[in-house]
Amino acid sequence: MKRVVIVGVGFGGLRAAQALSGKGLDVLLVDRNNYHLFQPLLYQVATAVLEQESIVYPIREIIRHWKGIRFQLAEVRNVDLERRQILTADATIEYDYLILAAGSITNFFGMDTVKRYGYDLKYLSDAVMLRSHILYAFERAAQRQNLPEREALLTFVIVGGGPTGIEFAGALSELIHHVLSKDYPELQVKDARIILVEAGGSLLLTFPKKLQDYARMRLQQIGVKVRLGTAVSGAGPSRVLLKDGTWISSYTLFWAAGVCAASLADALPVMKVRGSRVAVKPNLTIEDYPEVFVIGDMAYFEQDRQPLPLTAPVAMQQGEYAGRAVLQCEYGNSVEPFRYYDRGSMATIGRGAAVANIKNFNFSGFPAWIIWLVLHLFFLIGFRNRVVVLLNWAYDYFFYKKQVRIITQKGREAESETY
Amino acid sequence: MKRVVIVGVGFGGLRAAQALSGKGLDVLLVDRNNYHLFQPLLYQVATAVLEQESIVYPIREIIRHWKGIRFQLAEVRNVDLERRQILTADATIEYDYLILAAGSITNFFGMDTVKRYGYDLKYLSDAVMLRSHILYAFERAAQRQNLPEREALLTFVIVGGGPTGIEFAGALSELIHHVLSKDYPELQVKDARIILVEAGGSLLLTFPKKLQDYARMRLQQIGVKVRLGTAVSGAGPSRVLLKDGTWISSYTLFWAAGVCAASLADALPVMKVRGSRVAVKPNLTIEDYPEVFVIGDMAYFEQDRQPLPLTAPVAMQQGEYAGRAVLQCEYGNSVEPFRYYDRGSMATIGRGAAVANIKNFNFSGFPAWIIWLVLHLFFLIGFRNRVVVLLNWAYDYFFYKKQVRIITQKGREAESETY
Repeated sequence: MKRVVIVGVGFGGLRAAQALSGKGLDVLLVDRNNYHLFQPLLYQVATAVLEQESIVYPIREIIRHWKGIRFQLAEVRNVDLERRQILTADATIEYDYLILAAGSITNFFGMDTVKRYGYDLKYLSDAVMLRSHILYAFERAAQRQNLPEREALLTFVIVGGGPTGIEFAGALSELIHHVLSKDYPELQVKDARIILVEAGGSLLLTFPKKLQDYARMRLQQIGVKVRLGTAVSGAGPSRVLLKDGTWISSYTLFWAAGVCAASLADALPVMKVRGSRVAVKPNLTIEDYPEVFVIGDMAYFEQDRQPLPLTAPVAMQQGEYAGRAVLQCEYGNSVEPFRYYDRGSMATIGRGAAVANIKNFNFSGFPAWIIWLVLHLFFLIGFRNRVVVLLNWAYDYFFYKKQVRIITQKGREAESETY
Repeated sequence: MKRVVIVGVGFGGLRAAQALSGKGLDVLLVDRNNYHLFQPLLYQVATAVLEQESIVYPIREIIRHWKGIRFQLAEVRNVDLERRQILTADATIEYDYLILAAGSITNFFGMDTVKRYGYDLKYLSDAVMLRSHILYAFERAAQRQNLPEREALLTFVIVGGGPTGIEFAGALSELIHHVLSKDYPELQVKDARIILVEAGGSLLLTFPKKLQDYARMRLQQIGVKVRLGTAVSGAGPSRVLLKDGTWISSYTLFWAAGVCAASLADALPVMKVRGSRVAVKPNLTIEDYPEVFVIGDMAYFEQDRQPLPLTAPVAMQQGEYAGRAVLQCEYGNSVEPFRYYDRGSMATIGRGAAVANIKNFNFSGFPAWIIWLVLHLFFLIGFRNRVVVLLNWAYDYFFYKKQVRIITQKGREAESETY
């Protein structure tokens, strides 16, 4: 029986496995985590709306009824394309077909201090750490008499005006103004500052101008200071350095201004483009190795001379394509080149507001928010997760309560306290 | 305004604060965590039934409507009884009255290897770590060809036949036989061994003999091997040493065979009894310092020549007493000695079974389980927590699903892998 190895159980890897289920192949999923993570809601874990368990799903439960699909918990260190093997910490796994779907990591563009003092959102642990850090900043502020230090603790700098930065800014504003303001009667929480910094000339670059403007207006309404044309070039434990040389006093730098392919991409001796992504052929394989597919955030793919965005829908469609392509290859058929079918894009901006661009129709405000809500619930895996998430959202929306505001990690703070 | 400082926001500290709310005193709660932890359900977090967020509640939300109660996040390092001060890492806090309710920690009785390789359940992080460890053991077993090693990975030794050991054993048996057996078709999960080791001659020492026998019978029914009169004296990363010199090959040692007072008790220059607990006077204060109360697990208190158990009900009643005693003291009144009103005790043994001893009535099996369930839901703080917990329990009971079986920590494993 031919073996297909799929690295990564994100949106791409899962769809590929599903397409290959019950087709008489031995399919092995490999991931260093034993769960599928619903990344688009990570920012809600970081802002105390959702518990981390609600946005993940045990991978073995997902594949339980998929025939011929196995799972192995391991971190893939390298790929030997000649021998058709992947190498984990303590094993070598042979493959006939390989689908690489290891996703992306944050790109700090070589700025070591930003990497060291900044926070990002890629893994579940990032979200828990960021939540703990934000809440701990308020606890520390409540104990400080020194006014400038208190202000720095209550200043939050968000870098990147894409969907991640905007959704995080909106959720943080809500957390601060609706919940923490009541938690800390000893602080002037209304003085907390959220600054959204974007190097380009507008927010949500890939959205229509009308929605960009709405997003900016809405963010300003809920108290987020938007600074366009502003780039960050460094950081310290309690401050952020802008490219123009000025400093912002802030203990919290959230970096959402760049991603690059997971480091596994470096193992492939092929051309890398923009953030070390793998330039793939029209059928998503790599040059000279027609049995190796690279999909999702790891892949660089141009369609109509535009690179595809690094989003879940792209990864899902590529995963499904790769799975079907492997089957066609087994049957001796050729496959059509991959083509992404764009259903649209959206982003929320705090409670009751969002922007959505669906098939050239623009939605904003409450209707867009409802669309966002329904779609995210729909794509979330697992009935129980949907119920718990909906319950949390309803609770949050009607009672302004964010249950999960607990500090469970203190590691990074201990370090930054020693400045 | 006189200031009352309460150290610890567990069952005792919270009740004390509640009794003092709105009485014209300045009450400061101090804890190193920003949440109240419902410890009796920690074992369900460790066995993937509940997410950690469901058994905690943000302390600032609890006290939001309690007048005159403040909170400070800090770890108390020492107490200066003469100056009436407590010392945290970076502050000194004065008090007029002090209520120490810092709880207990696990007592390994000086056995370093047990402390190093064993797992215990006191903090939220312990439960998450133990859950991760158990699930990771199954993942490793699935990858091992070596049979003895695989068996050791699937052997779980639980030390201590009290409620904690028994509840954990029952929940672990369920997790393994109803859920993991389906997750790992590549393993003979039915061969997994759960061994409950108790040094004394019976389980649940404080319960009536009838219930002890039921518990033992029930545990054996669900596949738990019960070994009475057996003590553990050491451990390695993959084995457990018994007092009689024999070894059990096992990667998991769960220690629930002893607690002692939190280390803050050492700061008090007073007599310590059984596990460094503070021997308190009949009014729960300490000798020579009538303004210092010690309550809950930290305190040693005899009633009718029997020491009170280290349970939540004792802590709650002592907390309420201490709060009222402070008020009486302020009014210049004397107080009656503390007296514990025993409402009974209970323990679950897996799905649909429990033992309960309430006002000399014995319950066992399903009725006891329902009583257990209702009471725990009742005492859990927060409407949302109750709904989520009930939802999880129903989901688990009817569909045999344990959503939370995700591995979120790998720290300790990396260490034990280096043997």
